[in-house]
Amino acid sequence: MAHLTKDNEALTNRVKRIAGQVDAIDRALASSASCASILHLVAATRGAINGLMEEIIDAYLREHVAGPDLSDTARAEGADELLAAIRRYAK
Amino acid sequence: MAHLTKDNEALTNRVKRIAGQVDAIDRALASSASCASILHLVAATRGAINGLMEEIIDAYLREHVAGPDLSDTARAEGADELLAAIRRYAK
Amino acid sequence: MAHLTKDNEALTNRVKRIAGQVDAIDRALASSASCASILHLVAATRGAINGLMEEIIDAYLREHVAGPDLSDTARAEGADELLAAIRRYAK
Amino acid sequence: MAHLTKDNEALTNRVKRIAGQVDAIDRALASSASCASILHLVAATRGAINGLMEEIIDAYLREHVAGPDLSDTARAEGADELLAAIRRYAK
Repeated sequence: MAHLTKDNEALTNRVKRIAGQVDAIDRALASSASCASILHLVAATRGAINGLMEEIIDAYLREHVAGPDLSDTARAEGADELLAAIRRYAK
Repeated sequence: MAHLTKDNEALTNRVKRIAGQVDAIDRALASSASCASILHLVAATRGAINGLMEEIIDAYLREHVAGPDLSDTARAEGADELLAAIRRYAK
Repeated sequence: MAHLTKDNEALTNRVKRIAGQVDAIDRALASSASCASILHLVAATRGAINGLMEEIIDAYLREHVAGPDLSDTARAEGADELLAAIRRYAK
Repeated sequence: MAHLTKDNEALTNRVKRIAGQVDAIDRALASSASCASILHLVAATRGAINGLMEEIIDAYLREHVAGPDLSDTARAEGADELLAAIRRYAK
Protein backbone atom coordinates (compact mmCIF):
# COMPACT_ATOMS: atom_id res chain seq x y z
CA MET A 1 0.00 0.00 0.00
CA ALA A 2 1.56 3.30 -1.03
CA HIS A 3 2.06 5.49 2.06
CA LEU A 4 1.36 8.73 0.10
CA THR A 5 -2.40 8.20 0.14
CA LYS A 6 -5.74 9.85 0.84
CA ASP A 7 -5.25 8.91 4.50
CA ASN A 8 -2.47 11.47 4.63
CA GLU A 9 -4.86 14.33 5.38
CA ALA A 10 -2.17 16.97 5.71
CA LEU A 11 -0.91 16.12 2.24
CA THR A 12 -4.33 16.11 0.58
CA ASN A 13 -5.23 19.42 2.27
CA ARG A 14 -1.97 20.89 0.97
CA VAL A 15 -2.81 19.80 -2.57
CA LYS A 16 -6.32 21.24 -2.31
CA ARG A 17 -4.90 24.61 -1.13
CA ILE A 18 -2.62 24.66 -4.18
CA ALA A 19 -5.62 23.88 -6.39
CA GLY A 20 -7.32 26.91 -4.80
CA GLN A 21 -4.28 29.09 -5.53
CA VAL A 22 -4.20 28.03 -9.19
CA ASP A 23 -7.94 28.76 -9.39
CA ALA A 24 -7.27 32.23 -7.94
CA ILE A 25 -4.73 32.89 -10.73
CA ASP A 26 -7.34 31.84 -13.29
CA ARG A 27 -9.95 34.18 -11.78
CA ALA A 28 -7.44 37.03 -11.55
CA LEU A 29 -6.70 36.72 -15.27
CA ALA A 30 -10.43 36.51 -16.10
CA SER A 31 -11.18 39.64 -14.09
CA SER A 32 -8.16 41.58 -15.45
CA ALA A 33 -6.72 42.02 -11.98
CA SER A 34 -3.53 44.11 -11.77
CA CYS A 35 -0.44 42.50 -13.27
CA ALA A 36 1.42 42.96 -9.98
CA SER A 37 -1.21 40.91 -8.11
CA ILE A 38 -1.04 38.14 -10.73
CA LEU A 39 2.78 38.18 -10.50
CA HIS A 40 2.60 37.66 -6.73
CA LEU A 41 -0.17 35.03 -6.92
CA VAL A 42 2.00 32.91 -9.23
CA ALA A 43 5.13 33.40 -7.08
CA ALA A 44 3.15 32.31 -3.99
CA THR A 45 1.78 29.24 -5.80
CA ARG A 46 5.29 28.32 -6.83
CA GLY A 47 6.37 28.54 -3.21
CA ALA A 48 3.49 26.23 -2.22
CA ILE A 49 4.44 23.64 -4.86
CA ASN A 50 8.04 23.80 -3.60
CA GLY A 51 6.81 23.01 -0.10
CA LEU A 52 4.70 20.10 -1.38
CA MET A 53 7.67 18.75 -3.35
CA GLU A 54 9.92 18.85 -0.28
CA GLU A 55 7.31 17.03 1.80
CA ILE A 56 6.96 14.30 -0.82
CA ILE A 57 10.74 13.92 -1.25
CA ASP A 58 11.04 13.57 2.53
CA ALA A 59 8.31 10.89 2.73
CA TYR A 60 9.61 9.07 -0.33
CA LEU A 61 13.22 9.03 0.89
CA ARG A 62 12.27 7.62 4.30
CA GLU A 63 9.83 5.02 2.94
CA HIS A 64 11.37 3.85 -0.31
CA VAL A 65 15.13 4.32 0.18
CA ALA A 66 15.85 4.37 3.93
CA GLY A 67 12.97 2.07 4.97
CA PRO A 68 14.23 -0.83 7.19
CA ASP A 69 12.69 -3.79 5.37
CA LEU A 70 13.69 -3.03 1.78
CA SER A 71 15.84 -5.26 -0.44
CA ASP A 72 19.04 -3.74 -1.86
CA THR A 73 17.40 -3.75 -5.31
CA ALA A 74 14.31 -1.92 -4.04
CA ARG A 75 16.54 0.67 -2.36
CA ALA A 76 18.53 1.25 -5.56
CA GLU A 77 15.28 1.65 -7.54
CA GLY A 78 13.94 4.08 -4.94
CA ALA A 79 17.16 6.09 -5.16
CA ASP A 80 16.90 6.22 -8.97
CA GLU A 81 13.29 7.51 -8.86
CA LEU A 82 14.14 10.11 -6.24
CA LEU A 83 17.18 11.42 -8.14
CA ALA A 84 15.15 11.67 -11.35
CA ALA A 85 12.51 13.76 -9.54
CA ILE A 86 15.16 15.90 -7.74
CA ARG A 87 16.87 16.68 -11.07
CA ARG A 88 13.53 17.61 -12.57
CA TYR A 89 12.59 19.51 -9.39
CA ALA A 90 15.82 21.55 -9.55
CA LYS A 91 15.15 22.68 -13.12
CA MET B 1 -6.31 47.52 -18.76
CA ALA B 2 -3.66 45.16 -17.40
CA HIS B 3 -2.00 43.20 -20.30
CA LEU B 4 -2.06 39.91 -18.31
CA THR B 5 -5.77 39.30 -18.98
CA LYS B 6 -8.30 36.77 -20.20
CA ASP B 7 -7.55 37.91 -23.75
CA ASN B 8 -4.13 36.33 -23.35
CA GLU B 9 -5.38 32.89 -24.40
CA ALA B 10 -2.00 31.22 -24.25
CA LEU B 11 -1.60 32.32 -20.65
CA THR B 12 -5.10 31.23 -19.54
CA ASN B 13 -4.64 27.85 -21.27
CA ARG B 14 -1.35 27.43 -19.43
CA VAL B 15 -3.03 28.11 -16.09
CA LYS B 16 -5.84 25.67 -16.90
CA ARG B 17 -3.29 22.95 -17.74
CA ILE B 18 -1.61 23.52 -14.36
CA ALA B 19 -5.02 23.26 -12.66
CA GLY B 20 -5.44 19.90 -14.43
CA GLN B 21 -2.02 18.75 -13.17
CA VAL B 22 -2.85 19.68 -9.58
CA ASP B 23 -6.16 17.85 -9.95
CA ALA B 24 -4.24 14.79 -11.19
CA ILE B 25 -2.10 14.86 -8.02
CA ASP B 26 -5.27 14.99 -5.92
CA ARG B 27 -6.77 12.01 -7.77
CA ALA B 28 -3.50 10.06 -7.54
CA LEU B 29 -3.50 10.50 -3.76
CA ALA B 30 -7.20 9.53 -3.54
CA SER B 31 -6.62 6.37 -5.58
CA SER B 32 -3.43 5.39 -3.69
CA ALA B 33 -1.37 5.54 -6.86
CA SER B 34 2.30 4.55 -6.53
CA CYS B 35 4.48 6.98 -4.59
CA ALA B 36 6.90 7.19 -7.53
CA SER B 37 4.10 8.38 -9.84
CA ILE B 38 2.98 11.00 -7.30
CA LEU B 39 6.61 12.15 -6.92
CA HIS B 40 6.89 12.68 -10.67
CA LEU B 41 3.44 14.32 -10.99
CA VAL B 42 4.46 16.94 -8.43
CA ALA B 43 7.88 17.51 -10.04
CA ALA B 44 6.19 18.01 -13.43
CA THR B 45 3.65 20.46 -11.94
CA ARG B 46 6.48 22.41 -10.38
CA GLY B 47 8.18 22.62 -13.78
CA ALA B 48 4.92 23.94 -15.28
CA ILE B 49 4.57 26.64 -12.60
CA ASN B 50 8.21 27.64 -13.26
CA GLY B 51 7.39 28.08 -16.93
CA LEU B 52 4.31 30.17 -16.07
CA MET B 53 6.35 32.32 -13.70
CA GLU B 54 9.00 33.00 -16.36
CA GLU B 55 6.32 33.98 -18.89
CA ILE B 56 4.73 36.40 -16.43
CA ILE B 57 8.09 37.92 -15.40
CA ASP B 58 8.88 38.44 -19.10
CA ALA B 59 5.52 40.15 -19.81
CA TYR B 60 5.66 42.21 -16.62
CA LEU B 61 9.24 43.40 -17.25
CA ARG B 62 8.47 44.53 -20.79
CA GLU B 63 5.14 46.19 -19.91
CA HIS B 64 5.71 47.71 -16.48
CA VAL B 65 9.45 48.43 -16.36
CA ALA B 66 10.74 48.72 -19.93
CA GLY B 67 7.49 50.04 -21.48
CA PRO B 68 8.15 53.25 -23.53
CA ASP B 69 5.48 55.54 -22.05
CA LEU B 70 6.09 55.02 -18.33
CA SER B 71 7.06 57.76 -15.86
CA ASP B 72 10.30 57.27 -13.91
CA THR B 73 8.20 56.67 -10.77
CA ALA B 74 6.07 54.01 -12.49
CA ARG B 75 9.24 52.28 -13.72
CA ALA B 76 10.76 52.26 -10.23
CA GLU B 77 7.54 50.83 -8.77
CA GLY B 78 7.45 48.17 -11.51
CA ALA B 79 11.07 47.26 -10.72
CA ASP B 80 10.25 46.95 -7.00
CA GLU B 81 7.28 44.62 -7.65
CA LEU B 82 9.30 42.47 -10.03
CA LEU B 83 12.25 42.13 -7.65
CA ALA B 84 9.92 41.16 -4.79
CA ALA B 85 8.38 38.41 -6.95
CA ILE B 86 11.81 37.24 -8.24
CA ARG B 87 13.13 36.95 -4.68
CA ARG B 88 10.04 34.98 -3.71
CA TYR B 89 10.24 32.98 -6.95
CA ALA B 90 13.88 32.04 -6.27
CA LYS B 91 13.07 30.68 -2.80
CA MET C 1 31.09 53.28 -16.92
CA ALA C 2 29.49 50.03 -15.79
CA HIS C 3 28.00 50.49 -12.30
CA LEU C 4 28.85 46.88 -11.27
CA THR C 5 32.51 47.65 -10.66
CA LYS C 6 35.38 47.25 -8.22
CA ASP C 7 34.11 50.39 -6.46
CA ASN C 8 31.14 48.36 -5.32
CA GLU C 9 32.98 47.03 -2.27
CA ALA C 10 30.04 45.07 -0.91
CA LEU C 11 29.77 43.20 -4.18
CA THR C 12 33.48 42.41 -4.47
CA ASN C 13 33.58 41.25 -0.85
CA ARG C 14 30.63 38.98 -1.55
CA VAL C 15 32.42 37.44 -4.51
CA LYS C 16 35.60 36.94 -2.47
CA ARG C 17 33.60 35.16 0.26
CA ILE C 18 32.15 32.81 -2.35
CA ALA C 19 35.68 32.17 -3.67
CA GLY C 20 36.61 31.23 -0.09
CA GLN C 21 33.64 28.84 0.14
CA VAL C 22 34.59 27.10 -3.11
CA ASP C 23 38.16 26.81 -1.84
CA ALA C 24 36.80 25.23 1.36
CA ILE C 25 34.98 22.60 -0.73
CA ASP C 26 38.24 21.86 -2.57
CA ARG C 27 40.14 21.47 0.71
CA ALA C 28 37.38 19.29 2.21
CA LEU C 29 37.62 16.93 -0.76
CA ALA C 30 41.45 16.88 -0.55
CA SER C 31 41.35 16.07 3.17
CA SER C 32 38.60 13.44 2.78
CA ALA C 33 36.30 15.33 5.12
CA SER C 34 32.95 13.63 5.90
CA CYS C 35 30.51 13.47 3.00
CA ALA C 36 27.85 15.19 5.12
CA SER C 37 30.13 18.21 5.66
CA ILE C 38 30.90 18.41 1.94
CA LEU C 39 27.15 18.16 1.18
CA HIS C 40 26.44 21.12 3.46
CA LEU C 41 29.42 23.17 2.22
CA VAL C 42 28.13 22.92 -1.34
CA ALA C 43 24.53 23.72 -0.32
CA ALA C 44 25.78 26.82 1.55
CA THR C 45 27.86 27.94 -1.44
CA ARG C 46 24.84 27.57 -3.66
CA GLY C 47 22.87 29.77 -1.28
CA ALA C 48 25.63 32.40 -1.46
CA ILE C 49 25.64 32.38 -5.27
CA ASN C 50 21.83 32.76 -5.20
CA GLY C 51 22.22 35.84 -3.03
CA LEU C 52 24.86 37.29 -5.36
CA MET C 53 22.62 36.62 -8.36
CA GLU C 54 19.68 38.42 -6.75
CA GLU C 55 21.86 41.43 -5.91
CA ILE C 56 23.13 41.65 -9.49
CA ILE C 57 19.62 41.24 -10.98
CA ASP C 58 18.43 44.05 -8.69
CA ALA C 59 21.27 46.40 -9.69
CA TYR C 60 20.98 45.52 -13.37
CA LEU C 61 17.19 46.01 -13.46
CA ARG C 62 17.39 49.44 -11.83
CA GLU C 63 20.34 50.65 -13.91
CA HIS C 64 19.79 49.12 -17.35
CA VAL C 65 16.00 48.74 -17.61
CA ALA C 66 14.37 51.18 -15.19
CA GLY C 67 17.13 53.87 -15.35
CA PRO C 68 15.64 57.36 -16.09
CA ASP C 69 17.88 58.41 -19.00
CA LEU C 70 17.73 55.30 -21.19
CA SER C 71 16.43 55.19 -24.76
CA ASP C 72 13.55 52.79 -25.50
CA THR C 73 15.98 50.62 -27.47
CA ALA C 74 18.47 50.48 -24.59
CA ARG C 75 15.63 49.51 -22.22
CA ALA C 76 14.46 46.71 -24.51
CA GLU C 77 18.04 45.40 -24.80
CA GLY C 78 18.45 45.56 -21.01
CA ALA C 79 15.19 43.63 -20.60
CA ASP C 80 16.39 40.95 -23.06
CA GLU C 81 19.70 40.46 -21.22
CA LEU C 82 17.97 40.28 -17.85
CA LEU C 83 15.38 37.73 -19.02
CA ALA C 84 18.10 35.55 -20.55
CA ALA C 85 20.00 35.54 -17.23
CA ILE C 86 16.78 34.95 -15.19
CA ARG C 87 15.88 31.95 -17.38
CA ARG C 88 19.38 30.58 -16.94
CA TYR C 89 19.31 31.46 -13.23
CA ALA C 90 16.04 29.56 -12.74
CA LYS C 91 17.43 26.39 -14.30
CA MET D 1 37.10 6.67 4.09
CA ALA D 2 34.38 8.99 2.74
CA HIS D 3 33.69 8.29 -0.99
CA LEU D 4 33.59 12.04 -1.81
CA THR D 5 37.38 12.40 -1.77
CA LYS D 6 40.38 13.66 -3.72
CA ASP D 7 40.40 10.33 -5.57
CA ASN D 8 37.18 11.41 -7.22
CA GLU D 9 38.98 13.33 -9.95
CA ALA D 10 35.86 14.30 -11.84
CA LEU D 11 34.48 15.92 -8.70
CA THR D 12 37.68 17.82 -7.82
CA ASN D 13 38.03 19.04 -11.42
CA ARG D 14 34.43 20.26 -11.28
CA VAL D 15 35.16 22.23 -8.10
CA LYS D 16 38.32 23.72 -9.61
CA ARG D 17 36.34 24.85 -12.69
CA ILE D 18 33.82 26.59 -10.41
CA ALA D 19 36.71 28.26 -8.56
CA GLY D 20 37.89 29.54 -11.95
CA GLN D 21 34.39 30.88 -12.73
CA VAL D 22 34.22 32.75 -9.41
CA ASP D 23 37.67 34.17 -10.10
CA ALA D 24 36.45 35.32 -13.51
CA ILE D 25 33.58 37.23 -11.82
CA ASP D 26 36.10 38.88 -9.50
CA ARG D 27 38.31 39.94 -12.43
CA ALA D 28 35.30 41.19 -14.40
CA LEU D 29 34.30 43.45 -11.49
CA ALA D 30 37.91 44.66 -11.08
CA SER D 31 38.19 45.52 -14.78
CA SER D 32 34.73 47.17 -14.93
CA ALA D 33 33.52 44.71 -17.54
CA SER D 34 30.01 45.29 -18.91
CA CYS D 35 27.18 44.63 -16.46
CA ALA D 36 25.57 42.23 -18.93
CA SER D 37 28.72 40.08 -19.01
CA ILE D 38 28.89 40.01 -15.20
CA LEU D 39 25.20 39.08 -15.06
CA HIS D 40 25.80 36.10 -17.36
CA LEU D 41 29.04 35.04 -15.60
CA VAL D 42 27.16 34.79 -12.30
CA ALA D 43 24.20 32.93 -13.87
CA ALA D 44 26.64 30.43 -15.45
CA THR D 45 28.46 29.92 -12.12
CA ARG D 46 25.14 29.29 -10.43
CA GLY D 47 24.35 26.66 -13.04
CA ALA D 48 27.71 25.00 -12.36
CA ILE D 49 27.11 24.90 -8.59
CA ASN D 50 23.67 23.37 -9.26
CA GLY D 51 25.35 20.63 -11.28
CA LEU D 52 27.88 20.01 -8.50
CA MET D 53 25.08 19.88 -5.92
CA GLU D 54 23.14 17.29 -7.94
CA GLU D 55 26.26 15.13 -8.34
CA ILE D 56 26.93 15.22 -4.60
CA ILE D 57 23.28 14.48 -3.70
CA ASP D 58 23.40 11.50 -6.08
CA ALA D 59 26.63 10.11 -4.59
CA TYR D 60 25.48 10.77 -1.01
CA LEU D 61 22.08 9.13 -1.52
CA ARG D 62 23.59 5.97 -3.00
CA GLU D 63 26.41 5.70 -0.43
CA HIS D 64 24.86 6.90 2.82
CA VAL D 65 21.14 6.07 2.48
CA ALA D 66 20.77 3.29 -0.11
CA GLY D 67 24.15 1.60 0.54
CA PRO D 68 23.71 -2.18 1.13
CA ASP D 69 25.69 -2.56 4.36
CA LEU D 70 24.22 0.28 6.43
CA SER D 71 22.40 -0.12 9.75
CA ASP D 72 18.85 1.26 9.97
CA THR D 73 20.15 4.03 12.24
CA ALA D 74 22.89 5.00 9.79
CA ARG D 75 20.32 5.09 6.98
CA ALA D 76 17.97 7.33 8.98
CA GLU D 77 20.87 9.70 9.80
CA GLY D 78 21.90 9.77 6.14
CA ALA D 79 18.31 10.60 5.14
CA ASP D 80 18.19 13.44 7.70
CA GLU D 81 21.46 14.99 6.40
CA LEU D 82 20.32 14.71 2.79
CA LEU D 83 16.92 16.30 3.47
CA ALA D 84 18.56 19.17 5.35
CA ALA D 85 20.86 19.85 2.38
CA ILE D 86 17.98 19.47 -0.16
CA ARG D 87 15.87 21.99 1.78
CA ARG D 88 18.77 24.38 1.86
CA TYR D 89 19.57 23.61 -1.81
CA ALA D 90 15.98 24.43 -2.82
CA LYS D 91 16.08 27.85 -1.17
